[in-house]
Amino acid sequence: MTSPLRIGLAGLGNVGAGVVRVLADNADIIARRAGRPIVVTAVSARDRNRDRGIDLGGFAWLDDAAELPARDDVDVVVELIGGSDGPALTLARRTLAAGKSLVTANKAMLAHHGLDLAAAAEAAGLALKYEAAVAGGIPVIKGLREGAAANRISRVHGLLNGTCNYILSRMEAERLDFGHVLAEAQAAGYAEADPSFDIDGIDTAHKLSILAALAFGARIDFAGVATQGIRALALADIDQAAALGFRIKLVGLAEVEDGALFQRVHPALVPLAHPLAATGGALNAVVAEGDFVGRLFFQGRGAGEGPTASAVVADLIDIARGNAGPAFGMPVDALAALPRADAAARAGRYYLRLIVADRPGVLAELTAALRDHGVSIESLIQRGGPAADTAMVVMVTHHAREADVLASLAQMAASPAVAGAPVMMHILDL
Amino acid sequence: MTSPLRIGLAGLGNVGAGVVRVLADNADIIARRAGRPIVVTAVSARDRNRDRGIDLGGFAWLDDAAELPARDDVDVVVELIGGSDGPALTLARRTLAAGKSLVTANKAMLAHHGLDLAAAAEAAGLALKYEAAVAGGIPVIKGLREGAAANRISRVHGLLNGTCNYILSRMEAERLDFGHVLAEAQAAGYAEADPSFDIDGIDTAHKLSILAALAFGARIDFAGVATQGIRALALADIDQAAALGFRIKLVGLAEVEDGALFQRVHPALVPLAHPLAATGGALNAVVAEGDFVGRLFFQGRGAGEGPTASAVVADLIDIARGNAGPAFGMPVDALAALPRADAAARAGRYYLRLIVADRPGVLAELTAALRDHGVSIESLIQRGGPAADTAMVVMVTHHAREADVLASLAQMAASPAVAGAPVMMHILDL
Repeated sequence: MTSPLRIGLAGLGNVGAGVVRVLADNADIIARRAGRPIVVTAVSARDRNRDRGIDLGGFAWLDDAAELPARDDVDVVVELIGGSDGPALTLARRTLAAGKSLVTANKAMLAHHGLDLAAAAEAAGLALKYEAAVAGGIPVIKGLREGAAANRISRVHGLLNGTCNYILSRMEAERLDFGHVLAEAQAAGYAEADPSFDIDGIDTAHKLSILAALAFGARIDFAGVATQGIRALALADIDQAAALGFRIKLVGLAEVEDGALFQRVHPALVPLAHPLAATGGALNAVVAEGDFVGRLFFQGRGAGEGPTASAVVADLIDIARGNAGPAFGMPVDALAALPRADAAARAGRYYLRLIVADRPGVLAELTAALRDHGVSIESLIQRGGPAADTAMVVMVTHHAREADVLASLAQMAASPAVAGAPVMMHILDL
Repeated sequence: MTSPLRIGLAGLGNVGAGVVRVLADNADIIARRAGRPIVVTAVSARDRNRDRGIDLGGFAWLDDAAELPARDDVDVVVELIGGSDGPALTLARRTLAAGKSLVTANKAMLAHHGLDLAAAAEAAGLALKYEAAVAGGIPVIKGLREGAAANRISRVHGLLNGTCNYILSRMEAERLDFGHVLAEAQAAGYAEADPSFDIDGIDTAHKLSILAALAFGARIDFAGVATQGIRALALADIDQAAALGFRIKLVGLAEVEDGALFQRVHPALVPLAHPLAATGGALNAVVAEGDFVGRLFFQGRGAGEGPTASAVVADLIDIARGNAGPAFGMPVDALAALPRADAAARAGRYYLRLIVADRPGVLAELTAALRDHGVSIESLIQRGGPAADTAMVVMVTHHAREADVLASLAQMAASPAVAGAPVMMHILDL
């Protein structure tokens, strides 16, 4: 057995502690698979004295993570600090500048600076690996970058945020309001004190922009992701969707059509027979569609100490084996700069929900708005609304142009009979 | 761009033709991902003149595939001949002996000779890759070998034969007998003229033995797979399973418990909420359970020209990138020679179905047989049997030792009231 691969670990939260644990508990099998032992030599975190249930006695302690790359006893740096800029980015740049490979779980940093970091790694012949940044323990980065590499991928979509999926699953299963479930999740530590990155879809958008780059051989375009979270989602929508045979999920979806890149994060109606519909609780899942392989589906635990640490160590084993390769599956210069697709030109089926005054003629007004823009209705439910003298109207359209649906919706929203903002959600194809 | 990777292709059935098509259609994206073009230079097949819808004009033609490895214009050989021995094995050995890497889709050859071939590849520093041998286009070999490499995997199971899954799905959906669906599938070309490798579970066993080696870091033990196919499966069993909340699938399952290897291929009852239950038609799926990552689920098209060719070309891209690594994830010498587990010592829930004489006392006799061996019953259905004066009795046991269930069953089978052989199937845990 050759000399060990020596790791400098920055960040000792759950995932960092998990990496220490995986490397210790499975040292024998990891050494057999990696061809050499993988050992942590130096660590850095904010608080040296916090009890993490692991013994840090054998590692050098650094107060400043940025000093890890320069150490002679560090071959590879693992960045688990988090945040798109600041100390994480400083550490990443210093690591590559010091001629050392980098493993990171930091999707925000990759979404914003991934191409620059990949170019720096490439120029220096170093590895930049980030399996843990998307979908936790599921080897979907490897699956797209290598497993599906023979394919022209046309679409990738999935459930990439465990917090949102947990909240939506609980809302549905226990018929609870969004605010109630969020507060409980925060109290239990499943959701952050400031949950906006998760529930506003930003975390999903970070991950989607990375998946899209890998899947399509395109430059990362995080700013091009149209992002809508789950904050405005009412239990009534979940109920009505269920009545129509759908489950609402926060879906990140990216497509290439006619050479243009479409990226959107949004609550969408997923048909119950779709594999994403059966992905409940804190699970993540990714669907990728290739021209030869057809549809691939990956599912597993998307977060948490064990799964995320498993992904970090898989990257370390790859590096130990000498499997580097470009971070986004091809050299940065070969990644295409795709124009953004026009969302209004898209077509699909849509779910519309409105609260209206419960008086004669309102339904005629709504349906006329759709007719005026050539949108036909597949199904319609009218029920009592939240207040007396109101009704809730839910419609599912046939296949229609998004621009036409939006125009109908604007027409409806302008009516004095319509209370509040209408809700529109996309329906995922089976 | 560096010099092309030159492929010698043996076997031009659907998959071989598919490989030619993938490499041609996606040449640009493959070259960007592989870092160099991948081109076929020489081919060999039985019939030069068969119309395959592809142009062979640019390739050297060889009547004898065994001559491919010696050619100066061949860097890597792709073996798609099939069969555990004979020309495929000769070609594989000659390829490695000639110092060239090998890509194969041949699960039978790997199940029987995989360790020898891997050792030969390893000794010569060559790649032996076989993503296409298991689960078609799903990158499950890569997922286990690399993606889950940080984990001690305790169990791997899945649906690995599209023909069986198609037959079972159609039997259930259209309430047709096994023989009827098989005959139709043969007529349509979905099943082989001699379907025994598929329907008797041998193909699944080949694949399972490969997955088990990868998952557990163990030596392949194909002979140790207890194998039972779907030939004896009655529509009545599918109906009763459905009534109890299960779907019958041909499951390949391998586990390591207390250092012993358990491998079984068998029709099993899968709870409807289990992801394998939703894997219908010709899809394949694999579940792997690791100590840190938890449960991983992979699903996709398990056979056919496109998916299988996609997997072959993924291997070629890996080789072009220089990602070799040991065939079974670690050196052959490091693979553990695990003893076989004692199936009788296992425990679980079981489905039992008997045809009995419809007269008083028979049910008491059956239930007494279970009581005598300490097996308790979770649910029981009695219905009219296939003939007058017969009844069909279906029982699901609580968690019980397999040896006790088998002993009860032997006691029942000996009763004059029981007609024909009782059916026993395992129930998969959720």
